[in-house]
Amino acid sequence: MPGMQLHPDLAEIAPLVGTWRGSGRGTYPTIEPFEYTEEVVFAAPVLKPFLVYTQRTRHADTGEPLHTETGYLRTVEPGRVELVIAQPTGVAEVHAGTVSAGRIDLRSEAIALTPTAKEVVTVHRHLVVDGDVLRYRLEMGALGQAHQLHLEAELRRTD
Amino acid sequence: MPGMQLHPDLAEIAPLVGTWRGSGRGTYPTIEPFEYTEEVVFAAPVLKPFLVYTQRTRHADTGEPLHTETGYLRTVEPGRVELVIAQPTGVAEVHAGTVSAGRIDLRSEAIALTPTAKEVVTVHRHLVVDGDVLRYRLEMGALGQAHQLHLEAELRRTD
Repeated sequence: MPGMQLHPDLAEIAPLVGTWRGSGRGTYPTIEPFEYTEEVVFAAPVLKPFLVYTQRTRHADTGEPLHTETGYLRTVEPGRVELVIAQPTGVAEVHAGTVSAGRIDLRSEAIALTPTAKEVVTVHRHLVVDGDVLRYRLEMGALGQAHQLHLEAELRRTD
Repeated sequence: MPGMQLHPDLAEIAPLVGTWRGSGRGTYPTIEPFEYTEEVVFAAPVLKPFLVYTQRTRHADTGEPLHTETGYLRTVEPGRVELVIAQPTGVAEVHAGTVSAGRIDLRSEAIALTPTAKEVVTVHRHLVVDGDVLRYRLEMGALGQAHQLHLEAELRRTD
């Protein structure tokens, strides 16, 4: 992004900045496996030590909007990051984790649920940026099921 | 917003849809009182029963970016709403509340904090839409202080 200024504390997560598009697949014991397309944006609209994160997925076949979420990825000290995410399903996740050489590993510290939200207990998020490719895996313990793989996707940088 | 389709369950909160700008002031025992300018957007990008909420404030005198937050306001049944908010300070709020005649009253059901976040315990948010004017009050219990008024602002619809 020419001309964009990044807070110096963002150096380790700066490779995430951009718009990413690709596809993924989801599985969980309570649902049928599904495939989706996805757009992810990490942006740095102000000179502060966080990135704004937005995400949306669509059903791979029908194009129907599926999930969306938004929040912030912040750096707290070298090698350490925190993630705060809001979801329209009534779920908020806060994570703490590590960043090293383009790899980010996050574990939920707390998950807050509205009265009507489905019960989500644990979420781990693993992201790897390799040049213009972003891969992630999301593991989840929810709805009485053991913590396990829920989503994996591969996206490419589009700007 | 000409041509925009709203999910029918959004009727009670539809008056919020738009971009709002104005000013407010903040007080709390732990800080000096301050004044800020603010932009709030409630948008309905997909035909689902929630609005996407984004907010940013700037210092009234210096224009320096202050707070920002983002999340979702969802309708769960007639007269009842839920709010999920992420903040780059490491705080996530989930609220439940009521909507009636343009007035929305929300109380935090849970607040999730990252390891480095300041301790926020309770937040109440009260919004009133009166035509093209949006007023809100935010009360907060945090940092060992009693739950009390923290922010109040008045914004005008700009599109």
